[in-house]
Amino acid sequence: MAAKHTTRKEDYSKWYNELVQRADLAEHSDVRGCMIIKPYGFAIWEKMKEVLDQKFKDTGHSNAYFPLFIPKSYLSKEASHIEGFAKECAVVTHYRLKNAEDGSGLIVDPDAKLEEELIVRPTSETIIWNSYRNWIQSYRDLPILINQWANVVRWEMRTRLFLRTTEFLWQEGHTAHATAQEAQEETSKMLEVYADFAEHYMAMPVVKGRKTESERFAGAVDTLCIEALMQDGKALQAGTSHFLGQNFAKAFDVKYADKEGKLAHVWATSWGVSTRLMGALIMCHSDDEGLVLPPLLAPIQVVAIPIYKSPEDLERISEKFEALRILLKEKGISFKYDDDDNRRPGWKFSEYETKGVPIRLAMGARDLESGKVELARRDIKSKEVVDFEGVADFIENLLGEIQEGLFNKAKDFRLENTTEASDYSAFKKQINKGGFVSAHWDGSSETENKIKAETQATIRCIPLDQKMEDGICVYSGKPSKGKVLFAKAY
Amino acid sequence: MAAKHTTRKEDYSKWYNELVQRADLAEHSDVRGCMIIKPYGFAIWEKMKEVLDQKFKDTGHSNAYFPLFIPKSYLSKEASHIEGFAKECAVVTHYRLKNAEDGSGLIVDPDAKLEEELIVRPTSETIIWNSYRNWIQSYRDLPILINQWANVVRWEMRTRLFLRTTEFLWQEGHTAHATAQEAQEETSKMLEVYADFAEHYMAMPVVKGRKTESERFAGAVDTLCIEALMQDGKALQAGTSHFLGQNFAKAFDVKYADKEGKLAHVWATSWGVSTRLMGALIMCHSDDEGLVLPPLLAPIQVVAIPIYKSPEDLERISEKFEALRILLKEKGISFKYDDDDNRRPGWKFSEYETKGVPIRLAMGARDLESGKVELARRDIKSKEVVDFEGVADFIENLLGEIQEGLFNKAKDFRLENTTEASDYSAFKKQINKGGFVSAHWDGSSETENKIKAETQATIRCIPLDQKMEDGICVYSGKPSKGKVLFAKAY
Repeated sequence: MAAKHTTRKEDYSKWYNELVQRADLAEHSDVRGCMIIKPYGFAIWEKMKEVLDQKFKDTGHSNAYFPLFIPKSYLSKEASHIEGFAKECAVVTHYRLKNAEDGSGLIVDPDAKLEEELIVRPTSETIIWNSYRNWIQSYRDLPILINQWANVVRWEMRTRLFLRTTEFLWQEGHTAHATAQEAQEETSKMLEVYADFAEHYMAMPVVKGRKTESERFAGAVDTLCIEALMQDGKALQAGTSHFLGQNFAKAFDVKYADKEGKLAHVWATSWGVSTRLMGALIMCHSDDEGLVLPPLLAPIQVVAIPIYKSPEDLERISEKFEALRILLKEKGISFKYDDDDNRRPGWKFSEYETKGVPIRLAMGARDLESGKVELARRDIKSKEVVDFEGVADFIENLLGEIQEGLFNKAKDFRLENTTEASDYSAFKKQINKGGFVSAHWDGSSETENKIKAETQATIRCIPLDQKMEDGICVYSGKPSKGKVLFAKAY
Repeated sequence: MAAKHTTRKEDYSKWYNELVQRADLAEHSDVRGCMIIKPYGFAIWEKMKEVLDQKFKDTGHSNAYFPLFIPKSYLSKEASHIEGFAKECAVVTHYRLKNAEDGSGLIVDPDAKLEEELIVRPTSETIIWNSYRNWIQSYRDLPILINQWANVVRWEMRTRLFLRTTEFLWQEGHTAHATAQEAQEETSKMLEVYADFAEHYMAMPVVKGRKTESERFAGAVDTLCIEALMQDGKALQAGTSHFLGQNFAKAFDVKYADKEGKLAHVWATSWGVSTRLMGALIMCHSDDEGLVLPPLLAPIQVVAIPIYKSPEDLERISEKFEALRILLKEKGISFKYDDDDNRRPGWKFSEYETKGVPIRLAMGARDLESGKVELARRDIKSKEVVDFEGVADFIENLLGEIQEGLFNKAKDFRLENTTEASDYSAFKKQINKGGFVSAHWDGSSETENKIKAETQATIRCIPLDQKMEDGICVYSGKPSKGKVLFAKAY
């Protein structure tokens, strides 16, 4: 079966598109650029949400919900924000349809034109800060630590499932603070939450860094990010956390009175991750046979398949697996027993391989006799026969081992694909090969733009652990204070 | 404090509007008809979601996500559906803004007009059944049991927080089946899920019934519902479950091959509850002092307030409550210790009363000496001093008692406010007094419409446990087969 599918080597992009659909994660809808997230894909997203939501609550945040629609005029209030966001968006102009008088069908009722057009939110800073104005009077009302899980719309011309879609799902944190320092600490704290999630749950190593001025969020004073490396050597921005300074507080006139009664503008942050993480998860670990999922985010961690000729064998195998199900449930391990007799074992093996189930068990009549079970690992495609007795403990340990193994493999890959370049011709060669290229940069947007135009590489970030050292810019030859990370990116 | 607020007797509707805002549940946004759900309100909604979502999963359903936008032409495909839904809706006509050439600000770019307008989903039957066509080939693909948590938009002219808003949050189940019987069983099963949730979690008794033809969902063959009675004697439809027959399968040409290879149209259901349940929850239990929440949906079940003069007292009281917090956590009881020294105890008492926290504890220096704690119940406003030793067990039992007490109180209220009417003049009098009126009806839409025009009462439902008995229609004097439930409604 596997041979029929496009491999990563043949065409990475096609491999990805095919995989998303054959693992039943998502598909395109008839609505341009909007995807349908199918149950298996959504189950992975739900696991991500659950973990992140708990982390947000553990760090003191509450969820709330703000309107889908933003009045057009709000978008213009923060000058740089509008330049970055408002242009490509869905605009609601009318609020009613009616039957055409000529019987030709439904038409937009021209009498139901809105006085002010509404924009389907591309992000919610403006509508949220417009509310915060009424919520904040004194220092006692601060900090406000709110998160929202929502759908947002950005009218994209070229879309790819999960990676870039017109509508996508995300969470957006929006916090308000009395001091710049507190807001900056929040910005860093949430970046750490994202990095911890990426590394410990997605098993995806990330570089924590700071965006250059030209790559900053529209309206931010400082944008922190986590950057991951995909198997084709392209980087992917997996999450961002912004220090917004007083920009939105000033645009929406949000002030607080301190203990002495003195009025000052409030300090802000915003931070978000989206269904784009699904794309990152898929591209980070999967192989030519199908999806590979880290156990902590796999909707099914263990699948068991009976191999039988007689109903008696099936019954005895089912009893064994039922006992195992109970043991695994106690350990919080999700288990699926697939005894559907419309499908043959071979079909099932291939199905769960495609879907990236970390551990597959199979038991036949001979295993029954000998007290054994066949155990296959999805990540390294190994197979072994183990004692059925004690297999629950074995599985529990193995899931931890797989989780760690995936992270280490991805980390080794990143290490092998991170190089240093000291002159521009080497730089270009390395960028074309793929991976992160660490190089000195003179700090100017001009140089950054020229490199981008000539090589398609962007500065992914100035790593937070950047070593301060004098050097020579790889492009301009001007002085540099330290190396930054370049790559082609999604 | 309480005296300043509108009471239920004075003006029920004003009492509700004030309460939603002073308990910090939600507020109006600047966008017409769209609400902001504030953290405390959203925490209650999250609890509802969590319980319902688990119930959906326990009954075999999976979550998925379909696009926010529906092409205009889809809405016309199912004839009765469009009549019921598509008219009052948000219409996206353009996908870009631009800066006006005269510098006057942002305008809609006339060059970015969509070929076909997109409708912000008022409900998702059409876009989902358009997808199911590709998902269903054979009986092996059935049933499809999918739920979606989403925001939807219906352009309402008169809105009220939670009860009727332009944008609201909801879940919509959409299932596909091989036979009519299986779909009908699903319709009933989900109604039971809703009824169980309403009664056992919301502590809100409901009547399970069937809508009359004129009150049916647009596109449904049969609509089941749960109806609750609010404290002002008006009914509220709290959830619906629809048997859609083959209407959407025919409109979107969704067929499956049975075991013999014969093609037939698929049978469908859909079912939903929304943030309207928040309105029902508030109106069912709350009193003039504030919110009353059933313990199973209360974000904070127990709040503890220290009353102290010296830092030493505070420290000793804090130690006691910290020990209690650990005990309650083990029992899964949510606990808040409010030692904020910017607020006085009296302010806090009033605050948690307004917010409906079921149990409030207070401890002072004298309680410390005597090993006691003061415990106040929000539901019946009782106060007693109990031994601190063993208070965790006491609280655990009490929360169950409160939950049951709220349900019984609401059930008694409904019983007292459900009357029978055998002639029309009595009927009118009873309807004006409020509550459910059980009366014979001749089964015609004509009679139903006349009663509605003359009294504003609608047939809330034909109860599922309706007794079949010959009678005389309360309005027309024509023969009737059984009594139905009338009421004025939200």
